[in-house]
Amino acid sequence: MAMVCLSDFEAYAKKYLPKIAWDFFAAGADDCSTRDENILAYKRIHFRPRMLRDVSMMDIRTKILGTEISFPVGIAPTGFHQLAWPDGEKSTARAAKAMNTCYIASTYSTCTLEEISAAAPGGLRWFQLYVHRNREVSKNLVQRAEASGFQALVLTADLPYTGRRRDDIRNGFRLPPHMKLKNLEGAFEVCRMSLLDASVTWNDIYWLRSLTQLPIIIKGILTKEDAKLAVRHGVQGIIVSNHGGRQLDGGLATIDALVEIVEAVQGRVEVYLDGGIRKGSDVLKALALGAKCVFIGRPALWGLAYKGEEGLQDVLRILQDEFRLSMALAGCASVSEIGPHLVQFSKL
Amino acid sequence: MAMVCLSDFEAYAKKYLPKIAWDFFAAGADDCSTRDENILAYKRIHFRPRMLRDVSMMDIRTKILGTEISFPVGIAPTGFHQLAWPDGEKSTARAAKAMNTCYIASTYSTCTLEEISAAAPGGLRWFQLYVHRNREVSKNLVQRAEASGFQALVLTADLPYTGRRRDDIRNGFRLPPHMKLKNLEGAFEVCRMSLLDASVTWNDIYWLRSLTQLPIIIKGILTKEDAKLAVRHGVQGIIVSNHGGRQLDGGLATIDALVEIVEAVQGRVEVYLDGGIRKGSDVLKALALGAKCVFIGRPALWGLAYKGEEGLQDVLRILQDEFRLSMALAGCASVSEIGPHLVQFSKL
Amino acid sequence: MAMVCLSDFEAYAKKYLPKIAWDFFAAGADDCSTRDENILAYKRIHFRPRMLRDVSMMDIRTKILGTEISFPVGIAPTGFHQLAWPDGEKSTARAAKAMNTCYIASTYSTCTLEEISAAAPGGLRWFQLYVHRNREVSKNLVQRAEASGFQALVLTADLPYTGRRRDDIRNGFRLPPHMKLKNLEGAFEVCRMSLLDASVTWNDIYWLRSLTQLPIIIKGILTKEDAKLAVRHGVQGIIVSNHGGRQLDGGLATIDALVEIVEAVQGRVEVYLDGGIRKGSDVLKALALGAKCVFIGRPALWGLAYKGEEGLQDVLRILQDEFRLSMALAGCASVSEIGPHLVQFSKL
Amino acid sequence: MAMVCLSDFEAYAKKYLPKIAWDFFAAGADDCSTRDENILAYKRIHFRPRMLRDVSMMDIRTKILGTEISFPVGIAPTGFHQLAWPDGEKSTARAAKAMNTCYIASTYSTCTLEEISAAAPGGLRWFQLYVHRNREVSKNLVQRAEASGFQALVLTADLPYTGRRRDDIRNGFRLPPHMKLKNLEGAFEVCRMSLLDASVTWNDIYWLRSLTQLPIIIKGILTKEDAKLAVRHGVQGIIVSNHGGRQLDGGLATIDALVEIVEAVQGRVEVYLDGGIRKGSDVLKALALGAKCVFIGRPALWGLAYKGEEGLQDVLRILQDEFRLSMALAGCASVSEIGPHLVQFSKL
Repeated sequence: MAMVCLSDFEAYAKKYLPKIAWDFFAAGADDCSTRDENILAYKRIHFRPRMLRDVSMMDIRTKILGTEISFPVGIAPTGFHQLAWPDGEKSTARAAKAMNTCYIASTYSTCTLEEISAAAPGGLRWFQLYVHRNREVSKNLVQRAEASGFQALVLTADLPYTGRRRDDIRNGFRLPPHMKLKNLEGAFEVCRMSLLDASVTWNDIYWLRSLTQLPIIIKGILTKEDAKLAVRHGVQGIIVSNHGGRQLDGGLATIDALVEIVEAVQGRVEVYLDGGIRKGSDVLKALALGAKCVFIGRPALWGLAYKGEEGLQDVLRILQDEFRLSMALAGCASVSEIGPHLVQFSKL
Repeated sequence: MAMVCLSDFEAYAKKYLPKIAWDFFAAGADDCSTRDENILAYKRIHFRPRMLRDVSMMDIRTKILGTEISFPVGIAPTGFHQLAWPDGEKSTARAAKAMNTCYIASTYSTCTLEEISAAAPGGLRWFQLYVHRNREVSKNLVQRAEASGFQALVLTADLPYTGRRRDDIRNGFRLPPHMKLKNLEGAFEVCRMSLLDASVTWNDIYWLRSLTQLPIIIKGILTKEDAKLAVRHGVQGIIVSNHGGRQLDGGLATIDALVEIVEAVQGRVEVYLDGGIRKGSDVLKALALGAKCVFIGRPALWGLAYKGEEGLQDVLRILQDEFRLSMALAGCASVSEIGPHLVQFSKL
Repeated sequence: MAMVCLSDFEAYAKKYLPKIAWDFFAAGADDCSTRDENILAYKRIHFRPRMLRDVSMMDIRTKILGTEISFPVGIAPTGFHQLAWPDGEKSTARAAKAMNTCYIASTYSTCTLEEISAAAPGGLRWFQLYVHRNREVSKNLVQRAEASGFQALVLTADLPYTGRRRDDIRNGFRLPPHMKLKNLEGAFEVCRMSLLDASVTWNDIYWLRSLTQLPIIIKGILTKEDAKLAVRHGVQGIIVSNHGGRQLDGGLATIDALVEIVEAVQGRVEVYLDGGIRKGSDVLKALALGAKCVFIGRPALWGLAYKGEEGLQDVLRILQDEFRLSMALAGCASVSEIGPHLVQFSKL
Repeated sequence: MAMVCLSDFEAYAKKYLPKIAWDFFAAGADDCSTRDENILAYKRIHFRPRMLRDVSMMDIRTKILGTEISFPVGIAPTGFHQLAWPDGEKSTARAAKAMNTCYIASTYSTCTLEEISAAAPGGLRWFQLYVHRNREVSKNLVQRAEASGFQALVLTADLPYTGRRRDDIRNGFRLPPHMKLKNLEGAFEVCRMSLLDASVTWNDIYWLRSLTQLPIIIKGILTKEDAKLAVRHGVQGIIVSNHGGRQLDGGLATIDALVEIVEAVQGRVEVYLDGGIRKGSDVLKALALGAKCVFIGRPALWGLAYKGEEGLQDVLRILQDEFRLSMALAGCASVSEIGPHLVQFSKL
């Protein structure tokens, strides 16, 4: 079976992963409308490509928070990578480093953040954080992340409670006994998301700021109002995200929310996006609409499921090839040439 | 079979109810366009959720006509509950009371309104009314409803004649011999809808007002023009409804009609809605667009068909959980925080 | 099999007619886009029904060119009725008379216009006309129609050449040997549409006027420009039509073209419509948008195919029942109360 | 099997061509969205046909760059015609000449341009050109084309790199050993598209101009900005094209891009279009929106696959019949009467 595009990896993962694991990764909340909208929305954006521009020397590198990455696609935080591949997040870290891009490790990893760091020393990594009711748990994670060389904190804002994913309820989803939420061992006996603190507000950004020197990025913003609040509260970056459609069903596609957020932020912080990226041309559309970088969630898991770090590298390499080609065919030789003139929203 | 969402109850009811009963409950008029539009219209409304608001203490209660209910979802009037469960409307009344919400009992119940009252003393109940050609019939019903503790009258305005439901015609639908339109026994030998008075006009609201001290709610309004007439004629509430798509086929979805009605009414009376509610997020959308409360029709019947009052409680509990979660994920800790800023209509 | 709606007659005809006849009646030009659009367009128009208006006494009669008909639906001109039922157009004439509505007999009938007249004396009938290269043929038809009591002439403007109906080409469609284009016998040996005159222009209306005292109606108008020309050239009526999608594929649905034509004509002549009418509510939508009456083509043939004149009466009776009910449920007790306030075009 | 419309030829080719060849011709880039949009976009454009205009004498001829052709449809440049029919481009040239229209021969032909010329002396032919890294290769082709009687050069602007056509990658597509890129033999051992020069810019138009007296047409323009640049750089014509959806996926349909380009160009150069033409009415829509002529790619290959030059003539003849009929039914007797008043974009 030739692996030619990300859908090939999806088909592989669907076929070979245990159903309960596939369902968990695939799950969206409720009817999965938002999960599916994330993808459909790209089809309503059309390119206006420019011709006869010198694209013989392509430069697809970009910088996020000042650090160069090989192309504007990183790995979004997702949990439980051992469900996809025995080495779990260690493989993810190695693949991201090999491809010279950024990996956002999840609090809900099945490896400790120290293991993740040790697996790929010197790789660019950010650490994703929830605020737990027991603030000491979160404080401890922040300090461990900083100590382990993670270069930014990504605070997830859209999960005061877990979304209702019907197949997980039907399957009675839980981690197999030999897998652990390693980052949280010792913090409490049984990790339950209900231990997350649903009372978190914008003021807690100041608390988080007091714990660390690391840049703070806020993930899960979908409106210009919240984007302005994020800037006012001093974050360094925003990830436009609806948690892959796993939280509030019926929300906007992230690519549709991006425009008003980029406009509201006016370049004061970097804006990233996740959700629905399946092709290099999706990346180009997101950058044209103002994203500095995008992150992939499920496709990274499909790559892991295929062949661990090697499979994830395959996924990233295909995206890289597709992105470079889309840029060239749209007439852009470097990321700095990408802009809103390249796209228009369908009247349909 | 895990009952995880309302569609699971629908599938159960379709499988286990006699075809003639399922068809009767499922029926829409003509091509069922409006019935289906009621549901599809929600997919064109997208949330603009707000993040980092304290949603640790969720309060989903609301008040309708001054009475508190546990959450803004009641039971819409539908007929012939014994077709779904032997105890019929008595089970419905018990479930509504157990869940502390409002049940609008239909004139075309297979239990008397006195039986309904006795089944769940103290529950919040409204009585749905048609105007019969023989006004004494209606007057008698009004007086019995008031005497039995019903707290409001709901006048159905959209049924001067019965809509053309093709499957009912094909099936030759009629009540089985052991079921009766109990409220109308004695009033006339055979109850036929053609005994309804098609000459009713707005002036008859005054006649109805003269019969009772109860608040009058008008059900079946779909335009701002009629909403203004309703206010001018002194009703206490409006239910935006197209009778579940069972009357005029080709009409607007109720959620699409809601906006102009809320705007026309300007808070002078409460506005409710029925039609197409299948998820907690649908409830949130309706409230965001100005509904004070919504009512479910077919889903209540599916719950009854599943396990009588217990099944209906399951349905209400799932809706409650979904609604609470949607509110929290949209950033609202109480019903009073819900507003039009939470939604936008899709450009598509 | 219960015949509950027009689609039931369609299914019957598809099942029992010879394929070549079914294909001929069903055919649209090219991809059949316009044929299908005629129907789909109604789904994008939504009612804004009014409540609590006295609809106890329903009057669905209307007048066309001063003559009363039982409801605003007539029989559009279609050819070759013997393909559907042995008695052909004689049955059609009888059914139209029995239902007290107007039948537009086609030049391409398989009965002579004299036979049609004799079959249902006193019925309201108009005669549809093409202009033949040999003008004597057309002149002769006009004179015969006038002599036989037809009360108006309907000049078809959209067939300078016959549309390309792929299935007819594949089937090698031709009339069976025992059927004849009776009106044209003797005029020429073999009737071919290529004998129609493609050079006809608006000036030929004056020629037609010179031949007859009958009102002239022009059929096939789809733009405001042509509607104004029609008025200027003194016709008495316009039928908005795209020939059931059998001529130019890719044209507008007739219900979508209606609005600009009604506006352009400003009541100076009556505007009718055919194409896509399948339900009583379609009739109501067309009238709300300004049509004085609509005409059915294929549904009439399905009725004939079912049971000849009796089947066609069934079709008309169902449409009548559906139309009366739709009017009542929309709050109109008589045709004069129908107006543009009753509908809105979907934003979608 | 009756060949009634272009889809019949498509079905034939799909059935009888080797899969690898069918896939190569059918391929679009990535998800094939743009390939499919090219066709779908026509369905959103509706005719506003005019009636009662004298269409007895139809003249469908037009001129491109001053040369008369029998109707405004030519053959777009596509490669590897021997994959469809043994005689390859020689058959194409003969069919185009027989039908008196223009054939744009591709650089990637499987016959030499001299063979193509010799196959149909005196036929109207243009030569399609890529700019190779080794400019001598391109210069040589230009000189040979001019010497062989080609009457214009068509510079393809949208292929600095080859689009990613998934099925070709899966199939490992390559020419069978007995076929050659004949025009490039001797120029280099193995022809690879990567030998194309991705550094070409607008200034290279001047270089091309210095090599030849032939008119220069630029193919692959999709925006008004590039159309203005093309005019400013002195080309004689523009082909609005997205390479049949084989290059940048996610781009506009060509018919949707046409309007802004025609407006930008303001008649200073001729504007042509390819992509998605499948019916005569598509040609009429493109001309109504300002194209001077359209070119067919895949349908020409289907015709070749059916019966070589005879099959291609069949395809052209059907298009001609359909176009003539569409024009007549829209009320235009000659190409000069076609204009934007004939069409409107669907609100949908």
